[in-house]
Amino acid sequence: MPRGRPQKSNPADILQIAMSNFWTAGYSEISLNDLSKLTGMAKPGFYANFGNKEELFIKALQNYSETIAEPMLADLVQSPAPIADSFRALFIGIASTVTCADLPNGCFISASFLDAHQLPEKPRDFSQSLIDRQSLVFRQCLEAALERGELARDLNVEALAHFLTGQALAITGMARAGADMTRLTSFIDLAVSVLDEKGSVAASGAATRP
Amino acid sequence: MPRGRPQKSNPADILQIAMSNFWTAGYSEISLNDLSKLTGMAKPGFYANFGNKEELFIKALQNYSETIAEPMLADLVQSPAPIADSFRALFIGIASTVTCADLPNGCFISASFLDAHQLPEKPRDFSQSLIDRQSLVFRQCLEAALERGELARDLNVEALAHFLTGQALAITGMARAGADMTRLTSFIDLAVSVLDEKGSVAASGAATRP
Repeated sequence: MPRGRPQKSNPADILQIAMSNFWTAGYSEISLNDLSKLTGMAKPGFYANFGNKEELFIKALQNYSETIAEPMLADLVQSPAPIADSFRALFIGIASTVTCADLPNGCFISASFLDAHQLPEKPRDFSQSLIDRQSLVFRQCLEAALERGELARDLNVEALAHFLTGQALAITGMARAGADMTRLTSFIDLAVSVLDEKGSVAASGAATRP
Repeated sequence: MPRGRPQKSNPADILQIAMSNFWTAGYSEISLNDLSKLTGMAKPGFYANFGNKEELFIKALQNYSETIAEPMLADLVQSPAPIADSFRALFIGIASTVTCADLPNGCFISASFLDAHQLPEKPRDFSQSLIDRQSLVFRQCLEAALERGELARDLNVEALAHFLTGQALAITGMARAGADMTRLTSFIDLAVSVLDEKGSVAASGAATRP
């Protein structure tokens, strides 16, 4: 289960290995002893560089958020495509990490959120804050689409943002148990069809698509 | 974290305590030592009555499936309501277990499926077989609705069944991190709107609802 090469002592490399292992196996399955064996850094080195296991996990999540999740969210915000297509691209991006054998299963943030019941309070709160941030960006994108006239005016944008956050969780959950790209793609098409259907209601009852 | 009353020695009671603890905390968080302390049954008693930890977990999942999941699926199959309303009732039933403080979070089958990456092969396969069974029942209900004319003829019933299975996972995932009944209800309304929208496409382009 543990992944990584031994004898790394650069904190940035060690954080990368910790991220990869926490991401793949979850917080409760990886100990500082495991990480010490994988990296060659003695436990006092971990305390000096990262604090305790909880703080290391939070730093690993933050590293994932900054290097992987935020660029994907930025792509969503900047996408010139219709809102359903933009969310489809985001979800396909998340699903693609599953079918790549070198990458751990699903989105690390979603995975931590799904394991929240196994996390101590501080990592759980941090995981929650990242999911809240994701929901907020989803909501801002939906509000922009509403202003562009792509969605029905009476739509509950907050509920839709939470619905789409739930879809990202479901993709990661299905991925964990081995759903392949074909199954995930048809799942995603149905999930974003909620946006299409609402979009076609938007134009005063007339269909906006051929 | 562990739940239960000590000094039970009836295997049926012990299975119930094991189910409750595996359900709440997950397979990897509960040891036979924990269960031995909680129940007062010595470890040799566990081996004699249930085999090893993997087999006990499978028996606990099977017990949940027979006593909780199958009756809910039977209600779905026998429901005289429109298909979207029937699935809504099922999902509200799953979500309700969350808001009840006495009950462990979410559906035990969904929870095990979400933790599949932490399970040994046999419990993982058994968890998968229960999810497959659920998807099959969903599919049969959708096919019946298709025959009743409630869904579009060109609908991919298998994809829709997997989509709805994914929604049950998402409800459990969101529940784990503390989503309340209000948020879960608006999530469920959006999830089953996929059935409503498809339903209104079914009647040759005309809306089937006022």
